[in-house]
Amino acid sequence: MLNITLPDGSLRQLSDGASGYDLAASISEGLARNALAVSVNGEVRDLHRPLPDNAQVSILTWNDTAGKSTYWHSSAHLMAEALEALYPGVKLAIGPAIENGFYYDVDLGEGRSISSEDFPEIEKKMLELAKNKSQYIRKEVSKADAIAYFTEKQDPYKLELLENLEDGNITFYTQGGFTDLCRGPHIPDTGTIKAAKLMNVAGAYWRGDEKNKQLTRLYGITFPKAKDLTEYLERLEEAKRRDHRKLGKELKLFAFSEKVGAGLPLWLPKGTALRERLEQFLRKAQVKAGYSPVVTPHIGSKELYVTSGHYEKYGADSFQPIKTPNPGEEFFLKPMNCPHHCEIYKTEPRSYRDLPVRLAEFGTVYRYEQSGELHGLTRVRGFTQDDAHIFCRPDQVKEEFMKVIDIVLYVLKALDFPDFTAQISLRDPDNKTKYIGSDENWEKAESAIQEAALEKGLNTVTEYGEAAFYGPKLDFMVRDAIGRRWQLGTIQVDYNLPERFDLEYTAADNSKQRPVMIHRAPFGSLERFVAVLIEHCGGNFPLWLTPEQFIVLPISDKYSDYAYQVKAQLEQHDLRGTVDGRDERIGRKIRDAEMSKISYLLVVGEKEAQDNIISVRKHGEGDLGSMPLDAFVKSVQSQMVEAM
Amino acid sequence: MLNITLPDGSLRQLSDGASGYDLAASISEGLARNALAVSVNGEVRDLHRPLPDNAQVSILTWNDTAGKSTYWHSSAHLMAEALEALYPGVKLAIGPAIENGFYYDVDLGEGRSISSEDFPEIEKKMLELAKNKSQYIRKEVSKADAIAYFTEKQDPYKLELLENLEDGNITFYTQGGFTDLCRGPHIPDTGTIKAAKLMNVAGAYWRGDEKNKQLTRLYGITFPKAKDLTEYLERLEEAKRRDHRKLGKELKLFAFSEKVGAGLPLWLPKGTALRERLEQFLRKAQVKAGYSPVVTPHIGSKELYVTSGHYEKYGADSFQPIKTPNPGEEFFLKPMNCPHHCEIYKTEPRSYRDLPVRLAEFGTVYRYEQSGELHGLTRVRGFTQDDAHIFCRPDQVKEEFMKVIDIVLYVLKALDFPDFTAQISLRDPDNKTKYIGSDENWEKAESAIQEAALEKGLNTVTEYGEAAFYGPKLDFMVRDAIGRRWQLGTIQVDYNLPERFDLEYTAADNSKQRPVMIHRAPFGSLERFVAVLIEHCGGNFPLWLTPEQFIVLPISDKYSDYAYQVKAQLEQHDLRGTVDGRDERIGRKIRDAEMSKISYLLVVGEKEAQDNIISVRKHGEGDLGSMPLDAFVKSVQSQMVEAM
Repeated sequence: MLNITLPDGSLRQLSDGASGYDLAASISEGLARNALAVSVNGEVRDLHRPLPDNAQVSILTWNDTAGKSTYWHSSAHLMAEALEALYPGVKLAIGPAIENGFYYDVDLGEGRSISSEDFPEIEKKMLELAKNKSQYIRKEVSKADAIAYFTEKQDPYKLELLENLEDGNITFYTQGGFTDLCRGPHIPDTGTIKAAKLMNVAGAYWRGDEKNKQLTRLYGITFPKAKDLTEYLERLEEAKRRDHRKLGKELKLFAFSEKVGAGLPLWLPKGTALRERLEQFLRKAQVKAGYSPVVTPHIGSKELYVTSGHYEKYGADSFQPIKTPNPGEEFFLKPMNCPHHCEIYKTEPRSYRDLPVRLAEFGTVYRYEQSGELHGLTRVRGFTQDDAHIFCRPDQVKEEFMKVIDIVLYVLKALDFPDFTAQISLRDPDNKTKYIGSDENWEKAESAIQEAALEKGLNTVTEYGEAAFYGPKLDFMVRDAIGRRWQLGTIQVDYNLPERFDLEYTAADNSKQRPVMIHRAPFGSLERFVAVLIEHCGGNFPLWLTPEQFIVLPISDKYSDYAYQVKAQLEQHDLRGTVDGRDERIGRKIRDAEMSKISYLLVVGEKEAQDNIISVRKHGEGDLGSMPLDAFVKSVQSQMVEAM
Repeated sequence: MLNITLPDGSLRQLSDGASGYDLAASISEGLARNALAVSVNGEVRDLHRPLPDNAQVSILTWNDTAGKSTYWHSSAHLMAEALEALYPGVKLAIGPAIENGFYYDVDLGEGRSISSEDFPEIEKKMLELAKNKSQYIRKEVSKADAIAYFTEKQDPYKLELLENLEDGNITFYTQGGFTDLCRGPHIPDTGTIKAAKLMNVAGAYWRGDEKNKQLTRLYGITFPKAKDLTEYLERLEEAKRRDHRKLGKELKLFAFSEKVGAGLPLWLPKGTALRERLEQFLRKAQVKAGYSPVVTPHIGSKELYVTSGHYEKYGADSFQPIKTPNPGEEFFLKPMNCPHHCEIYKTEPRSYRDLPVRLAEFGTVYRYEQSGELHGLTRVRGFTQDDAHIFCRPDQVKEEFMKVIDIVLYVLKALDFPDFTAQISLRDPDNKTKYIGSDENWEKAESAIQEAALEKGLNTVTEYGEAAFYGPKLDFMVRDAIGRRWQLGTIQVDYNLPERFDLEYTAADNSKQRPVMIHRAPFGSLERFVAVLIEHCGGNFPLWLTPEQFIVLPISDKYSDYAYQVKAQLEQHDLRGTVDGRDERIGRKIRDAEMSKISYLLVVGEKEAQDNIISVRKHGEGDLGSMPLDAFVKSVQSQMVEAM
């Protein structure tokens, strides 16, 4: 008999030779039907391979990342089979699963190419082959046999891959008439592939080396239901509509200039208003929570970074040092704010009674990214962290962690991100030597984080071995309105910098002790956060945050005076907005205001001016009818209070 | 007869050969008594020299900068005379007037030196000689005679100076038994020198070249009344007490760290609170005045500075460029914000109706200063300008100038700088070629500035030839509480950058036109302004600005709860402060709070807790008695309203 432990900790006994499929079937018929692969002691395997004894096993379905990944890898094989049928003699390089779907790098041979016009034919062939419900059959082969096979097939890429493989570790997978050199694992058969779409074709050098031959990379995606594909494509369209680079331009939030430099955003007036309001919102929450804002320069001398340890990490791929007339003197653009904050901590002697010291700065840092990696506001060369460093006693770590979690939760709530998990990254328990700091401190900090997350009721995932070398951390993984996941807020414990900067406090017994440092940034960076926020809300920002809450639209010049009166009165209630005083027709004014995603359009004409009222249109909702200013103010204010 | 024009424009006729003294005597006896020198067509001359015909003349007294300067130069001669008496054989190099007093570089000869212990003897000798009322007698001498004189006197320095002088241009001045090679001018006689004080002794290389011999530099100052010297010395003591470097440390406003780098301030929590409040104050005023805040990066690519023209001004004495992995790519730390703002202007087409566009940024810039020139917050390598750039039509310059003046006046009033003048810097009318931009534009802009200043009722001084090459400007010269003058706010017109960046707007006739740019910074830089402000108010900041408005001091632990209640209630009225919860005696708490210059000390004990009142001490004023919280809040709030 086999003893199997399931993810919920329960034990199950199966007869010898039982497979993952048997296990699934023993749990439920539905699970067996949906099972794609199986995880055995953390390793993903084919569903039909026999299970070992005393294993931790979980059944993987479409709902598991590893299940999806296996499904898409198998789909890459299916696409390869279709290509062999349509493009005889095609040579195959590699075909992995990726975050959304899969690709295969292929060599079509002299004079042949694939364009998007060819996609439907390939998709059709894939679905036709899938209907055969061909099993993915695993076979261990000797290196000699493998070489013989691909020599006969005249595939130089697989032969080159084989050179680096050891005998005894080589497997083939076959489905239908197609056989590939492959480590696996795969789904049971092609029958579950019900929808297929080729997404893109691009060039890719063999093994990523531009000295090698350029191959054709075909990107595709598949689904177990046709409806899933439709939804996926709709989501893609929606993502395009919400692209922060597009909306950023349309809403005049930010711009880039070649002369200033790629990856260095210029915040335009409306973007600056948004950004400053975000800063102000967090600054207020932080000051209330006992943080002290500080301001430090954007450069630091070489000596600072020698002390912090960053100096040895600067390389040819970084911004180079700034030399000065003083020989040997070098400054660096700061890549992070912590070294500067350590120096502030050191400006006066600290006692155990003074801790925690919480230094906060909206600190702009600079890091060189390759130009190919730059992307709108999400990958930039200069960005502003909503940074803070908490210097505390070891016994304060848990409480401080909980307080930071409170701030992150406050931010996520105010900005309407209800869907998130907390990823706790701990030491690799089997390889403790690569971490600095004592065992005792690590254990204290790790349990402090876990307890803090538990007490705050967070939905957590624990990753062993994902801690930084200097301490454990907790990251907030947030799902946006169209289902994408972003890593936003981060909280990290650090034993390294207090050591390197020789930070101290005087304990109650008068001894000198090392404080613990906590790095934290609820937004992460203002740039990246604003990008995520734009895409999350599609440019329709929460009312409290939006740059223009209202615009007054006079029907004609005659009502311009009244329009400005309305604006002035609303401003007295701390509402923000403008008057569209242009000599344009009201239809055009409304259209332009809707395009700018201004929350409230206040139309004023003869009746409104006479009765001292406004006609209100809400962006995305339409006409709300006319009302006195007071009623409007009350309604808007109550919405804002609710959101916070 | 001579025709003389006086500064008020009035004409006066004097007989041929009349001197400045005669002119003064013809005006009033008092003026003749106080006259020290005379300005003839802008050139300062001896009072007793005959005046030319048709000249613009003004009589210079102790109240004129040039009068004081002449007085101190003459005092340098007097000190030299005293030194010759006390240190026979002393060789004299140069002895100019400086901002406060004068110095003389002298070569005492092998084995002799002067220390501060010798000062009283020299001072005594000076006053003794002064009592002789020796006239300063001017004499034109031939170069040969001059060389003969100093050869006999064995003075190598004067002989070296003579080498570079042309025959016919050489004058000697003699008073009492002392003769010096000197261009003059001088005061009539030594009789007006009633108080003398040697301030300092230092080393100085002959002609400032460290390869030359090191001489002894003696600094001194003199006054026409003994009381003036006493007051001057008191002011110096007061300046020392108010030194922002000393107060900045004591009040924990800012710090410097060698590791971060010299001249790169770290703003500590209290300094940051002050700085942010200043920023917020100005931001609010600016937004109200139609400015749009923007945010731009702290670096820009080489191309940006080639366009702006700054690139060619970078030299070996600047921060060097930041190279990147991309060969040929170079970034610079930004030395000013204007090029970035020009790029923002260019992000969309502008119409004449859109102007003025007013882009504001608290932009941190970096400029390399020699380490010897660094001084607290007044000379730094990184500072934050309260910068804005107004892009307007030529016909809007005057109105925009007036609006900027309004903001500067608002700032100076709120920060209690009642004493200032506006210096208007115009083109040199005799050398128009060194300026860019058309004559028409210059004339328009210059009269716009002058009219704006006049209409705003500013007390102005006009300096010809002091304009920047790119446009005229107006600087606010502010006098602080102990009489020192600082250049603070600045407003500059610029025709250059719009040209270099090819900025445009579409005029009403659809033609493309160049906007005019106005640079302006009411504070100048936050760093320098805070330094001046600290010294102006001696660390006792205006109540609305001060980092801590109150501190609650519980008499013992028993009243700690009540102390925190008081704090919470005051915070609800937007007042800022803390509780001194230390286990210290009340006397100590009061002393420490006074040292920190906290505006209000609120002492609470049994009586206060029982009656729900507080006992109030005001910093620098003492006990105000006990009162209910409401009364305190009302009094504090009314003071703040008054100040704004």
